Amino acid sequence: MEKEKDPAAGTEPVQRVYLDHNATTPVDSEVLEAMLPFLKENWGNPSSIHALGRASRTPLENARRQVAQMLNCTARRILFTGSGSEADNLAIRGILPCRPGRHLITSAVEHPAVLQTCLGLGREGYEVTVLPVDGQGRVCPESLAEALRPDTALVSIMLANNETGTLQPVAELAAVARRRKVPFHTDAVQALGKIPLDVEELGVDLLSLSAHKIGGPKGVGALYVRSGLELAPLITGGGQEHGLRSGTENVAGIVGFGKACEVALRRLNAGEMARLAHLRDRLEAGICYLLPDARRNGPEEDRLPNTLNLTLPEIRGESLVLSLDRRGVFFSSGSACKSGNPEPSPALLAMGLSVEEAHCAVRFSLGTGNSAEDIDYVLSALEKTLAETRSAIRFVSCR
Amino acid sequence: MEKEKDPAAGTEPVQRVYLDHNATTPVDSEVLEAMLPFLKENWGNPSSIHALGRASRTPLENARRQVAQMLNCTARRILFTGSGSEADNLAIRGILPCRPGRHLITSAVEHPAVLQTCLGLGREGYEVTVLPVDGQGRVCPESLAEALRPDTALVSIMLANNETGTLQPVAELAAVARRRKVPFHTDAVQALGKIPLDVEELGVDLLSLSAHKIGGPKGVGALYVRSGLELAPLITGGGQEHGLRSGTENVAGIVGFGKACEVALRRLNAGEMARLAHLRDRLEAGICYLLPDARRNGPEEDRLPNTLNLTLPEIRGESLVLSLDRRGVFFSSGSACKSGNPEPSPALLAMGLSVEEAHCAVRFSLGTGNSAEDIDYVLSALEKTLAETRSAIRFVSCR
Repeated sequence: MEKEKDPAAGTEPVQRVYLDHNATTPVDSEVLEAMLPFLKENWGNPSSIHALGRASRTPLENARRQVAQMLNCTARRILFTGSGSEADNLAIRGILPCRPGRHLITSAVEHPAVLQTCLGLGREGYEVTVLPVDGQGRVCPESLAEALRPDTALVSIMLANNETGTLQPVAELAAVARRRKVPFHTDAVQALGKIPLDVEELGVDLLSLSAHKIGGPKGVGALYVRSGLELAPLITGGGQEHGLRSGTENVAGIVGFGKACEVALRRLNAGEMARLAHLRDRLEAGICYLLPDARRNGPEEDRLPNTLNLTLPEIRGESLVLSLDRRGVFFSSGSACKSGNPEPSPALLAMGLSVEEAHCAVRFSLGTGNSAEDIDYVLSALEKTLAETRSAIRFVSCR
Repeated sequence: MEKEKDPAAGTEPVQRVYLDHNATTPVDSEVLEAMLPFLKENWGNPSSIHALGRASRTPLENARRQVAQMLNCTARRILFTGSGSEADNLAIRGILPCRPGRHLITSAVEHPAVLQTCLGLGREGYEVTVLPVDGQGRVCPESLAEALRPDTALVSIMLANNETGTLQPVAELAAVARRRKVPFHTDAVQALGKIPLDVEELGVDLLSLSAHKIGGPKGVGALYVRSGLELAPLITGGGQEHGLRSGTENVAGIVGFGKACEVALRRLNAGEMARLAHLRDRLEAGICYLLPDARRNGPEEDRLPNTLNLTLPEIRGESLVLSLDRRGVFFSSGSACKSGNPEPSPALLAMGLSVEEAHCAVRFSLGTGNSAEDIDYVLSALEKTLAETRSAIRFVSCR
C-alpha cells in the first residue's frame, strides 16, 4: 500500500490499494532487474550466429526451463507466445487442422480468448458444444462425457475462472477426454502462481499461461504442448519456437516471464497463498458486515485463494469501482477485458445470476503487495463511500 | 563503437562494431527511458476502468499517433501486434476470409513471414503466384499486371529487402493492383526509419512494421490498415485493437515503439541516412579493395541506405561471420531468421545467384551507432582475418 496526499480530498490522506491482480499485476522488481540487461547491453537477435546473437539464445532457453519448472515438464514442451490469448488461440486453432473431427467442446465460463475463439470457429463451420456450469461455476465431468462424440477434435476447459476464481475439476475432466482419445486444453492463465500446477497430474495436452498475471511483463504468454501432439502454427515465417510461432523472440519479455515463474514458485512454496486467502476472507467478512445482503459468486472452497466475487444487491458494480477509485482502491466490476463493455458478465449469467445480479457484481483479486492494513483501508473506504454516495451508486432495479 | 580488452586476443584491443542492424537494433536510450515508467509505477491494464487502467490507455493512444506520423495516416489506422511477422500474417491470413478469390500474388524475395505464409496457404488450397525478380531483386510492374486474375484476393510485395536492401517499385505495383481493385500489402519492416514512408503516396492498403528494427523493443509490431478494408483477426478474445488483435496490450513495448518512431523520424529528417549511406559506401569500397572479386548483390541506387550485401567469391559467408566475430565485428551471412539454417538464401537464388555464390554472401547493415572509425576498424579486422585465416574460410568450390 502506498500513501499520498490527494489535494481533491482535502485533508484526508489517500492510500492506494490495488485489488485487481486478476486483471494485471505490477512487474516484480526482481523481474525488471532480470529484464533490463536485455533492453540495454544484451540486445542481440537469438537467431544471429555471432556472439551478440548467441548471448541472447542462452537466457531464452533458461527462461523456458523456469516456466517448465512451474508445470513439472521439460523445457522443450514450452512455446513462448505474445500473450495468454495468443496461447489459447494457438492451442485451439492450431490443433484443428491436425485432427479429423469438426466438433469442439468448451464451457460457458471460459475467458473470451477461448469462448469467443470457439464461437468464431462455430461460425466457420465447426460444431461447438458449450457445457453449462452449476451455481458455483463448475463443469460436471458427466456432462463432458455425454457431450463427447467420435468427431470431437478438442476439449477446452479452464483451470481457474478469472472472475470468480472457481476451480474446475480439470484432472477429472481431462481423464474423461483422454479415455475417448480427445486432446484436452486448459487455460491456466489465472491459476499460474496461485495454485500448484503439474501437467502430469492434470493430464492435460495443452495449457496456456500469461506472464503479466504473475508479476511478469505484458506481451508474453506461453503454451505447454504435450510431447507427440501435432499442432499447426498461427504465425508462420522464420520458424522460431520449433516452427510453431515465427517472429523474433521478445527476449527481455521472455526472460522476465522466466524470472516471474521462479519468484512465483518460491512464494507459492513459502505459503503466500494461505496468507492471501486469509486476507481475502477478512475482506469478505468485512464487506458482508457492511452489506449483509452481499452474496459470494463462486464456491467457498475449490477457488483461487486470492479471488472474491460478490454481488452487492442494488449497487451497480461499475459505479462502486469508480467511487472507490477516488479513494485509491482499485478493483473490477467484471473481467478486465470487458470492463469497458456494459454487457453483464456471461460467466455470471451462466452460473444462474440474473442480468440485474450480474450488473451488481464486483471482483476483488489480491496479490503479493497486499497487507492486512490494505484490507482495513478498503473496508473503511467502502464504509465512507457507502455513507456518502449511497444514492448515487444504488439504483432501484439493478438495470 | 565500444572498446574492451579481450584476454584471448593477447595485447590487441578488441573493439565491438555492430553491422547487423537489419537483424535487430539496440534499444535506443530514449526508448528505454520512455518504457520504464510502464514497467515500474504505471502498470495498469488499459482495459480496466479505474485510474490505474486509464493511466495506461492514454500513452497507448499516444504511441499509436507516433507510429501513424511515420506513415502519414491517422492513429486509428494502426493496429499493434506482437511482431512484424504477426503483422504480415494478420494482413495475409486476415484479408482472405473477407475476399471472394482464392488466388494470391507475392514475390520470390519476400521475408519468410510473407513467403512461407503464402506458400502455406498454397498447401491449404489457395493458388499462389510467386513473381520472379530481376538480377537486382526487383519485381517488374508488368509481371504483376500479367499475374493478376479476377480471383486474386491479395498482392503482397515488400518495400525493402532485408538481405540486399533492394527497394521495390511499390507505388507502381500498388497502382497496378488498385486498377484491378485488388488489395495490396507491403512488408515495410526494413524500410521503416530508413526511407520516408507515406501510405498515401505508396497507395498500399496494408503495411507491416516492427519496433526492434528501429531502436524499439522486441515483441512489438504494427499493421497499417486502410480505412474501409475488412480484415478478420488471427487472435480472438477480449476484443482489443478494435477486435482485430485480442490480448492485453504490451503497454511498455508499444510506448517504446511509439518513441522509437519519433526518434527515427527525427533522425531521418536530420539527414542520418545520407551519413549511413556514405559510411556504407566507404565499407564497400574498402572491401572491394581488399577483395577485388567481391560483387554487390542488389542495385547501387534504389537500395536501403544502410545495407550492403556482397558475394565474396570462395569465402564462405558463415565462416567469415564467425572469424570476424572474434575481432568484435558483428554482421550476417544471410537474413537473421535463417542464419542457423545452412540452406542458401532463397532471395539471392531468385536474383540469379548460384548456390555457391549465395553461400559466399555476407550482409552488412549499418545503424545510428556506427561511425567512420567503425568502418576503418572493420576493414582492418577484415584485412587481418583474411591474412591469417584465408585457408580456413575459403573453400575451393563454395562448399
